Amino acid sequence: MQENRQLDSPEPTEVQVAVQSTGLCGSDLHYFNHYRNGDIIVKEPLTLGHESSGVVVEVGSAVTGLKAGDRVALEVGLPCLECNLCKEARYNICKTLRFRSSAKSFPHFQGTLQERINHPAAYCHKLPSNASLELGAILEPLGVAIHGSRRAALKSGSTVLIFGAGAVGLLCAAMCKVSGAKKVIIADIQEARVVFAVQNKFADEQIVVPMKRPQAIEEKLAFAKEVAELIKAKSDIGEVDAVFECTGVESCLQAAIYSTRPGGRIMLIGMGSPIQTLPISAAALREVDLIGVFRYANTYQEAIELVSSGNPLLPDLSKLVSHRFEGFAGIPEAFDMAGRVKDDDGKLVLKVLVDTTSP
Amino acid sequence: MQENRQLDSPEPTEVQVAVQSTGLCGSDLHYFNHYRNGDIIVKEPLTLGHESSGVVVEVGSAVTGLKAGDRVALEVGLPCLECNLCKEARYNICKTLRFRSSAKSFPHFQGTLQERINHPAAYCHKLPSNASLELGAILEPLGVAIHGSRRAALKSGSTVLIFGAGAVGLLCAAMCKVSGAKKVIIADIQEARVVFAVQNKFADEQIVVPMKRPQAIEEKLAFAKEVAELIKAKSDIGEVDAVFECTGVESCLQAAIYSTRPGGRIMLIGMGSPIQTLPISAAALREVDLIGVFRYANTYQEAIELVSSGNPLLPDLSKLVSHRFEGFAGIPEAFDMAGRVKDDDGKLVLKVLVDTTSP
Amino acid sequence: MQENRQLDSPEPTEVQVAVQSTGLCGSDLHYFNHYRNGDIIVKEPLTLGHESSGVVVEVGSAVTGLKAGDRVALEVGLPCLECNLCKEARYNICKTLRFRSSAKSFPHFQGTLQERINHPAAYCHKLPSNASLELGAILEPLGVAIHGSRRAALKSGSTVLIFGAGAVGLLCAAMCKVSGAKKVIIADIQEARVVFAVQNKFADEQIVVPMKRPQAIEEKLAFAKEVAELIKAKSDIGEVDAVFECTGVESCLQAAIYSTRPGGRIMLIGMGSPIQTLPISAAALREVDLIGVFRYANTYQEAIELVSSGNPLLPDLSKLVSHRFEGFAGIPEAFDMAGRVKDDDGKLVLKVLVDTTSP
Amino acid sequence: MQENRQLDSPEPTEVQVAVQSTGLCGSDLHYFNHYRNGDIIVKEPLTLGHESSGVVVEVGSAVTGLKAGDRVALEVGLPCLECNLCKEARYNICKTLRFRSSAKSFPHFQGTLQERINHPAAYCHKLPSNASLELGAILEPLGVAIHGSRRAALKSGSTVLIFGAGAVGLLCAAMCKVSGAKKVIIADIQEARVVFAVQNKFADEQIVVPMKRPQAIEEKLAFAKEVAELIKAKSDIGEVDAVFECTGVESCLQAAIYSTRPGGRIMLIGMGSPIQTLPISAAALREVDLIGVFRYANTYQEAIELVSSGNPLLPDLSKLVSHRFEGFAGIPEAFDMAGRVKDDDGKLVLKVLVDTTSP
Repeated sequence: MQENRQLDSPEPTEVQVAVQSTGLCGSDLHYFNHYRNGDIIVKEPLTLGHESSGVVVEVGSAVTGLKAGDRVALEVGLPCLECNLCKEARYNICKTLRFRSSAKSFPHFQGTLQERINHPAAYCHKLPSNASLELGAILEPLGVAIHGSRRAALKSGSTVLIFGAGAVGLLCAAMCKVSGAKKVIIADIQEARVVFAVQNKFADEQIVVPMKRPQAIEEKLAFAKEVAELIKAKSDIGEVDAVFECTGVESCLQAAIYSTRPGGRIMLIGMGSPIQTLPISAAALREVDLIGVFRYANTYQEAIELVSSGNPLLPDLSKLVSHRFEGFAGIPEAFDMAGRVKDDDGKLVLKVLVDTTSP
Repeated sequence: MQENRQLDSPEPTEVQVAVQSTGLCGSDLHYFNHYRNGDIIVKEPLTLGHESSGVVVEVGSAVTGLKAGDRVALEVGLPCLECNLCKEARYNICKTLRFRSSAKSFPHFQGTLQERINHPAAYCHKLPSNASLELGAILEPLGVAIHGSRRAALKSGSTVLIFGAGAVGLLCAAMCKVSGAKKVIIADIQEARVVFAVQNKFADEQIVVPMKRPQAIEEKLAFAKEVAELIKAKSDIGEVDAVFECTGVESCLQAAIYSTRPGGRIMLIGMGSPIQTLPISAAALREVDLIGVFRYANTYQEAIELVSSGNPLLPDLSKLVSHRFEGFAGIPEAFDMAGRVKDDDGKLVLKVLVDTTSP
Repeated sequence: MQENRQLDSPEPTEVQVAVQSTGLCGSDLHYFNHYRNGDIIVKEPLTLGHESSGVVVEVGSAVTGLKAGDRVALEVGLPCLECNLCKEARYNICKTLRFRSSAKSFPHFQGTLQERINHPAAYCHKLPSNASLELGAILEPLGVAIHGSRRAALKSGSTVLIFGAGAVGLLCAAMCKVSGAKKVIIADIQEARVVFAVQNKFADEQIVVPMKRPQAIEEKLAFAKEVAELIKAKSDIGEVDAVFECTGVESCLQAAIYSTRPGGRIMLIGMGSPIQTLPISAAALREVDLIGVFRYANTYQEAIELVSSGNPLLPDLSKLVSHRFEGFAGIPEAFDMAGRVKDDDGKLVLKVLVDTTSP
Repeated sequence: MQENRQLDSPEPTEVQVAVQSTGLCGSDLHYFNHYRNGDIIVKEPLTLGHESSGVVVEVGSAVTGLKAGDRVALEVGLPCLECNLCKEARYNICKTLRFRSSAKSFPHFQGTLQERINHPAAYCHKLPSNASLELGAILEPLGVAIHGSRRAALKSGSTVLIFGAGAVGLLCAAMCKVSGAKKVIIADIQEARVVFAVQNKFADEQIVVPMKRPQAIEEKLAFAKEVAELIKAKSDIGEVDAVFECTGVESCLQAAIYSTRPGGRIMLIGMGSPIQTLPISAAALREVDLIGVFRYANTYQEAIELVSSGNPLLPDLSKLVSHRFEGFAGIPEAFDMAGRVKDDDGKLVLKVLVDTTSP
């Protein structure tokens, strides 16, 4: 539903941004289809969209680093900066962080699928001339991958497994490449996705996970061990140094535990089944740590430098943008597409972008 | 079963130790009662015992740091020192580590319930004059607590929860006190244990966990949340900074997840149910990390300095020794006692020691 | 010079504080005596004072955590919170941090030797009922010691050397005790200071450094080695694990390098000679790292918890307050005293506090 | 001087290696020309050489991972594995480490300029088929660069400065590229060296440091500031995130301090003037840490994976080998060449290798 809202001039420390490009992500889809995302329920009209970029059109009186015309990526989570977590540079898990398009804070902090928004200048990151606005929108999910790879503390020469070859999984794979991983193995139930990943140099090895749905826990774990064997066959060391679990699927996390070497790490990135039955001793006894990854903190600068650096280890991230929709009118169709695996022409759906510069 | 074995003189880098004091632990009990410990099955006669101290009686030709008469604590796990994990100082998870009394390596590496053993001098840690041989035997489980507190990376001023008030839980509580924890809360289903913990200054607050056994997962999680509420009521911050889970019980780990603050850590120390159903999203979304703790690496020196330091934050560890048995003849009775919660006089059973200096 | 300035009501996120207690420190003295501090020159009237506490008298409209009557310690450095260093939780070295009583930022950010100041509520830290306002003023230099001990990453059981037994050195010693140091050795040219340190349980061992002033570099280094020998004689390990250099004196840093074990750290805390001739290879070849410590970041909560915890390892910090002066009228005398080693009665001068509640 | 020594069969855990390729380094040159290296004096005949590779010709009875014919890089420092530093994975600074070609331990541990040596199998690292023996010899100085980059803890996107464009400086530059540095600036007094570095993609920017030799400290520091200005002009951020100081020259370390951003690190890698006069406050007040780097620990596996990985960020390391000499007869000429900047044909001298397979 499209509506007109009044927008004041920006506050002294804000800029007004004409939003151009917004990527859709799973949480947007949940809100769009169910008016909720897990336990978080929409309580008033909520604009979606949080993977965004745009052009500065007006600057607040105290803003010095930006001027009208600057192209910026929007960091849409605003932390309190006063709590201990903020002071420890972990503002992503600040309890009072306000995040655009999330219904968690009330009144809701509206998303970016708007013509213009006022946003603190400190959270508008200027894009270099060689980075497109579309790429600017991708810096948000890239931030998740950067945050995940930081928490993974990968050493160069590592062997890494990625579960899930959607946009976030592919970006995690890219960050592993950039971090000097010796081998990145990517696994998904969709063959087209892992083929895409390897063909476009996001990953080195592909695994198509069989689509079994065992019921009893013994069968589930047997299946997970079977998947782990597929992984071990691809890894030089038999086990992997780290897993980026980007699916939220129980059998994937089970297989991740069986696949990781002693002392390795599993990054919990995908949001899926909130309750999972896990072979937890197989992790604990080998000091395989389960590390949470929630959004990102202080990643935009690194993301911008990375995409503008010409780093030959970085795959071409623009290839992630599989579908584009124009204007507010295109939003419903965009959401429909974002929920699909392939479009009508059989093309893989990865990242769907909405351009809101035109109606 | 007692048998006589021939013992050669020590190798050049070994010493021969007359074992005096050996504590019994849960893994010994498993082997004793079931000839197995989890997946590990005894394949030949296996001497138990790995929490030990004794007196050097003979030194190998290349040994310089020890002499006959020295009192030593025995570190009974011998790593390969050549694999990557060893080189990264994580020798506790070395894949080819040989650990006395464990049936994992074959031929089995015999435990310490022997009169004398030959052991590498580098793994015999000289006790200072103010540390008894009984305390020397306790340095082994203390090493687990030291290793756990290192991996927890506690800051001073933390609020910590300990699940399980057995010997390892109490030692973890002690290490939290030593690390400057502001408040240590200890929880157990046995009231006598948490009372002991608080009375003897291992912990500041006690929680008696109700002995419910819910079956359905919804009821299990509801129970875990109920336990978490008990914990929050005791904590200054409502949640705790870290949990040391020393029970291996599913409901405890569930409650641990619900009780930990964003960015906190849960240390997986207890070995119990290998498969557990967990509210994993509640951990991941708040970056509550699940950190494995398996035995210890490089803890003996710190342990020795700690027990001989007179640190006023350290509870009196000698109070952990609740029962003593003399000689090889006493071993069956010792194992029987180690499997009980209280003895016939109603005294709490914590650490059972066997003195093998006499037959 | 005392003057009257107009004070507006606090901004929405500020509180107004009636300053009570302010400690004087070396940088105040430099400004007071020379109108400069190193390269930083006073350009307009500058109120001194930055170790302060007081009582909230008015709260801004948006302040929720504080109310009139609350007793607070003032954190007087206000970071930008937008630069990379702020986002990495290193706001103490933020390039645009404004620090009360420092002439670095212009217009100068006025110090706390005022009746009342408006200050951001987020940087006013509520004192618990068992912490006096005098102790509140000491939390500022204690923050330096906390920050230093964090950067030192001391392990429990360490042997530590403190150079300089003034207020900061004594607080560093206290933090080493709290961190579980096995032995704290303190060195100073003033015997009365090291005697005070040991008698009041800030340190375990004392060293009186001879007051030589060698001129040639060979003689300087020979003297430093001589001092290092004094230190080695006091340390159990012959060398120390870490040095807290709180004097800024060249010969102390030289001796620190010679005294530290391979892999140890030297914390550069004292501000003194800006140019020093150092045996740098003796540090580099043994991976003895020289670690800068500038003020503090995110230390107030830990400081408050520490002083209110009853931690038996913490010496009685109130003993640091050696001299008290009442009212603005007493400030000149206070500065005079702060520049002395002992007062006319022979009492050691450590921390001089000014109480500005009365004229 | 060439002599014949008797070589026994390897011990059970050793292999016998036919040494093929040995690189010469500065410490070899010092011993060769002066029979000493700093304070370490040669006390008996000492074979030089420690950057080496060869072919296994015989294996000890207990060796399982190697067989005759395997090509190996030799790690020539053998740590005690028993001291605390070894247990903390810092075996490079083990006090009793024995290092081939160094006169520090006595009897001296002979270097690799021999036909055959017996060496512990655990310290012979098997080369993959796509790594030449010459590259195998370079893994030793590469280990220094890997160790330095680990201690630097570079983030991707960093701007880094390398002082000294000799073999170690170039390898450090390569490791910075591999670590995702945004920009690597290299500085040397020899223009040919920095030109080589940039042309061969070891670095992005070159600086020729003027060859001034100021005497007074004020002039020295003025010169260092001048050099720092050259550096700032090349850096995107005005200052650099880290410096790898590979010259050991006082003015370089002075300039490094002035060039590094607050919170940055200076890696002390070059061995040069043992005593240096430094603007230490300029480091300490901005928390610019001076971090020692001595040889390497646990770097061979990462080095092997790196050189065999096809990582496009890695420059072609084989270009470092500028001069080759055949046989023992060629050694004197090799040492002569290793001491020069360019050969008679004007070709840059970087790494000089000796092939000892022929007499």
